[in-house]
Amino acid sequence: MTWNVYLSGEIHTDWREQIIKGCEAKDLNIVFTSAVTDHDSSDAAGDGLGAESNNFWRDHKSAKVNAIRIQKLIKQCDMAVIRFGDQYKQWNAAFDAGYCAALDKPYITLHSEEIVHPLKEVDASAKAWATSPDQIVEILDYLLNQK
Amino acid sequence: MTWNVYLSGEIHTDWREQIIKGCEAKDLNIVFTSAVTDHDSSDAAGDGLGAESNNFWRDHKSAKVNAIRIQKLIKQCDMAVIRFGDQYKQWNAAFDAGYCAALDKPYITLHSEEIVHPLKEVDASAKAWATSPDQIVEILDYLLNQK
Amino acid sequence: MTWNVYLSGEIHTDWREQIIKGCEAKDLNIVFTSAVTDHDSSDAAGDGLGAESNNFWRDHKSAKVNAIRIQKLIKQCDMAVIRFGDQYKQWNAAFDAGYCAALDKPYITLHSEEIVHPLKEVDASAKAWATSPDQIVEILDYLLNQK
Amino acid sequence: MTWNVYLSGEIHTDWREQIIKGCEAKDLNIVFTSAVTDHDSSDAAGDGLGAESNNFWRDHKSAKVNAIRIQKLIKQCDMAVIRFGDQYKQWNAAFDAGYCAALDKPYITLHSEEIVHPLKEVDASAKAWATSPDQIVEILDYLLNQK
Amino acid sequence: MTWNVYLSGEIHTDWREQIIKGCEAKDLNIVFTSAVTDHDSSDAAGDGLGAESNNFWRDHKSAKVNAIRIQKLIKQCDMAVIRFGDQYKQWNAAFDAGYCAALDKPYITLHSEEIVHPLKEVDASAKAWATSPDQIVEILDYLLNQK
Amino acid sequence: MTWNVYLSGEIHTDWREQIIKGCEAKDLNIVFTSAVTDHDSSDAAGDGLGAESNNFWRDHKSAKVNAIRIQKLIKQCDMAVIRFGDQYKQWNAAFDAGYCAALDKPYITLHSEEIVHPLKEVDASAKAWATSPDQIVEILDYLLNQK
Amino acid sequence: MTWNVYLSGEIHTDWREQIIKGCEAKDLNIVFTSAVTDHDSSDAAGDGLGAESNNFWRDHKSAKVNAIRIQKLIKQCDMAVIRFGDQYKQWNAAFDAGYCAALDKPYITLHSEEIVHPLKEVDASAKAWATSPDQIVEILDYLLNQK
Amino acid sequence: MTWNVYLSGEIHTDWREQIIKGCEAKDLNIVFTSAVTDHDSSDAAGDGLGAESNNFWRDHKSAKVNAIRIQKLIKQCDMAVIRFGDQYKQWNAAFDAGYCAALDKPYITLHSEEIVHPLKEVDASAKAWATSPDQIVEILDYLLNQK
Repeated sequence: MTWNVYLSGEIHTDWREQIIKGCEAKDLNIVFTSAVTDHDSSDAAGDGLGAESNNFWRDHKSAKVNAIRIQKLIKQCDMAVIRFGDQYKQWNAAFDAGYCAALDKPYITLHSEEIVHPLKEVDASAKAWATSPDQIVEILDYLLNQK
Repeated sequence: MTWNVYLSGEIHTDWREQIIKGCEAKDLNIVFTSAVTDHDSSDAAGDGLGAESNNFWRDHKSAKVNAIRIQKLIKQCDMAVIRFGDQYKQWNAAFDAGYCAALDKPYITLHSEEIVHPLKEVDASAKAWATSPDQIVEILDYLLNQK
Repeated sequence: MTWNVYLSGEIHTDWREQIIKGCEAKDLNIVFTSAVTDHDSSDAAGDGLGAESNNFWRDHKSAKVNAIRIQKLIKQCDMAVIRFGDQYKQWNAAFDAGYCAALDKPYITLHSEEIVHPLKEVDASAKAWATSPDQIVEILDYLLNQK
Repeated sequence: MTWNVYLSGEIHTDWREQIIKGCEAKDLNIVFTSAVTDHDSSDAAGDGLGAESNNFWRDHKSAKVNAIRIQKLIKQCDMAVIRFGDQYKQWNAAFDAGYCAALDKPYITLHSEEIVHPLKEVDASAKAWATSPDQIVEILDYLLNQK
Repeated sequence: MTWNVYLSGEIHTDWREQIIKGCEAKDLNIVFTSAVTDHDSSDAAGDGLGAESNNFWRDHKSAKVNAIRIQKLIKQCDMAVIRFGDQYKQWNAAFDAGYCAALDKPYITLHSEEIVHPLKEVDASAKAWATSPDQIVEILDYLLNQK
Repeated sequence: MTWNVYLSGEIHTDWREQIIKGCEAKDLNIVFTSAVTDHDSSDAAGDGLGAESNNFWRDHKSAKVNAIRIQKLIKQCDMAVIRFGDQYKQWNAAFDAGYCAALDKPYITLHSEEIVHPLKEVDASAKAWATSPDQIVEILDYLLNQK
Repeated sequence: MTWNVYLSGEIHTDWREQIIKGCEAKDLNIVFTSAVTDHDSSDAAGDGLGAESNNFWRDHKSAKVNAIRIQKLIKQCDMAVIRFGDQYKQWNAAFDAGYCAALDKPYITLHSEEIVHPLKEVDASAKAWATSPDQIVEILDYLLNQK
Repeated sequence: MTWNVYLSGEIHTDWREQIIKGCEAKDLNIVFTSAVTDHDSSDAAGDGLGAESNNFWRDHKSAKVNAIRIQKLIKQCDMAVIRFGDQYKQWNAAFDAGYCAALDKPYITLHSEEIVHPLKEVDASAKAWATSPDQIVEILDYLLNQK
């Protein structure tokens, strides 16, 4: 049985690659999906629909185009991993967590101990909190293969 | 017909009071609800269930107790106002926004122009973006009373 | 038992008033609701949130503010009456009909025989087609009071 | 991962073919679906069930048979493209848009600038507004393939 | 706490009155609802919308008008009592039972032992089978008042 | 795209075979499903779980075992055909119709003109009424293959 | 705003009364509901529908009658308290917990530390674990009254 | 058509293997799934996320990790078999039963006659009660293969 895992959040480190490679090394039967993670492409997602002079509307158009993909992938996933780095606002990651919670999609958070307190509401609805991609790989291996 | 409006987010300024008083001045038929907004009480919500030596679990217990109230109120509201200040992580506010979006609860964001870009995903699922409590009052007056 | 009836569509004739007065004359226990039907107010619903130079965005902001009210009222109604006049595009009325159909909210259409063919998909999901406000009043009287 | 895209609306120009060919040229993994777009066949969908002397009932029977296909395809799609031409009532397209909105199916509208105002409610619930089939192809390419 | 009980099915005996009077005698806090039970009125429910020469369409129009009331009442009830007499087809009663089952509305059937076999699918999804109105009253008294 | 069609109702004539063969002759891509249609097997579905001296409980056990299959198949179908013969109570067929209606599964009824009146509530929620298996085949061909 | 709290589980100690009196002493605006807690009455809930010689069917009939009340009350509650004593199987309490979890109804468990391990799945979906009725009263006071 | 059957409950006897082998012997097209049934592995499911000094939190972390798998499998199954042995609390099995009931997933219980009374609420929502794995195999064979 294939698992479908959505990877949400921070795009400045290679945590996605670490998880994907770790799971490939264990030959886990998982389809990983993500929002567009190329920052410039993502910000420009709506530009082809016409230029905007106002930044709010440029962002608005791009974010809505991206939402088509994000919401489809979350609705079709079995679970999500939601990563918070120590920098930046990352409100989109917390938004995805709330979206998962309301749809009863299980998610695991991935973040350092430093930000435990501001993430307490996000963690309270999570099924687990991990601090390293390796822990995520270990849990996925358990979930798929343990008898 | 009474409207039920949930007020989510930042607790360091008096934006809730401004909205509530503004609506009272117009005699609008609205029940406003909120999470516990007293910071220390909210952090201690689970303390009565037994002390925790580990901060993660203390936060976890309190956040889950608070979630009983927050999720009840969001599920029963007609709409939400979600406020982001210019400081702090405020991931709980973005989490509430995602939760509202997935439940198809309409919400209006309330934040300054400075944080338009990091809030683009949150704004993309909002029904409106306001920059002052007065604008919120004006919209509520319109929604309830305009023929 | 109170019935909650949403009145959607055309705003250039007094069909809403005819239905409401007809039901008052029969002392029917009905709460009628509507979108904002003052055309200029409706088009300006979002103006208080800041001026827009681009007409698309002005319309967009106003339509989204109006959607807060419309979608709340449709979700809470027991049934809707959806009126199509012989003029204008009235795509919002057809949109409301599709919205009702997907939510399994029963609706009755109110329109002349001239536009039966272009409305066939809208009528196919309706519970009834009426050609006069009097017929609507008669049906409501039957639904509420007939033993 | 295959995407399933429903194409709704106007049947007098070749916009469907343009989108499908454009996506084939880019080798996008998309299944496109539509209602029956042959006008005469669609109007006659229910004729095999017995002749009707009254046009309303002939339309009614055909529209209900067509609804079996349309509603199945919308419920199973990942997203829809909803096209409005500058002529005709096209209430079925607006109905499909409302149906999508209530089911939380993302849709993109495709129409000229001339009809922005009457479509404002339909556009308010859309994820994007495009003015040419090429823009649709561009967005689909982005949604499926951008890393 | 008020209970809302929908009474569905056979209209040729006074089983509804027996249940209602029995509950009044015990002062039970129940709102009883029903479809229109006057046979001629029910068959004529759609006549005000225009005469039909074809009996199928006359029945169709009336049954759809009646469905507005029936489906509202079933959706809002706490439970239903569904009565089958020994005569007539009574397919509408079995239809209501299937409708309740799919919505997870609990229902009790009320019928004689003679028709146990043909009702086995209807009884299989019921919460109870009663053979007399008195038994229904007894169960309602228990459900509302027993500590 | 495969269609999944559930065939419900009367088991004394070969209407199922006629539809299935008619669709095979046209090479339609349809998976047909049904409840167990062997009468004796169906009545004995629960016998392996232990004998019952009381007929009500024997029927009850068998009907519940059958319900596992029926409800799975209805929930997974794209549409149903529900057949009523001129004899027998056939309450299970009407129950299936109500179940489909509440789940918004489209269904077509198949019955003679003689029983139009007692089936008016069942037909009112149907997408079509056919009088012969050939008509069903014709509609399925249209739904699957018409451009 | 009234809260509706369902009290599920063990019936051999006075934990319900302690919670109810504790909340009355604080004048909390709560409606408490429960299944029938009189053991003999509960076991006899279906006896009025006819005697059964087989204990399984006697239990079955009673449990289904009780389910009408239990499932109504759980569906309408804002939250539940689910109590496990140190004795007896109490599978109905665990069943209620699973039922709440699937419906996304928040619940708090109330049990001693001795049974933490066998209750780990039940506690994993709970919003809190309390060991005394006083703790429940304290949390309810917080949820209703804390600003 | 493949069936997906979830096996829940007792892990100390080989009932799962008996059912699986019995179905293989009949060549039934079934995918069987289960929670992790290795007791020590299951208890340690969360250990990789960091050691806990408090048993409650160790159990909590492991149970939540396990819940990712369990809830995915239950949501995707066609039916469940829920086994209760004569020993141990087995609250997780009763929890799964309540979870299935609320999601309208059909389940069959498998237990001895000795525990009929304490399981009456669990059995009341079941589609069948079996006392041996062979009976389960027989029912599955019937459900999949009987014409």
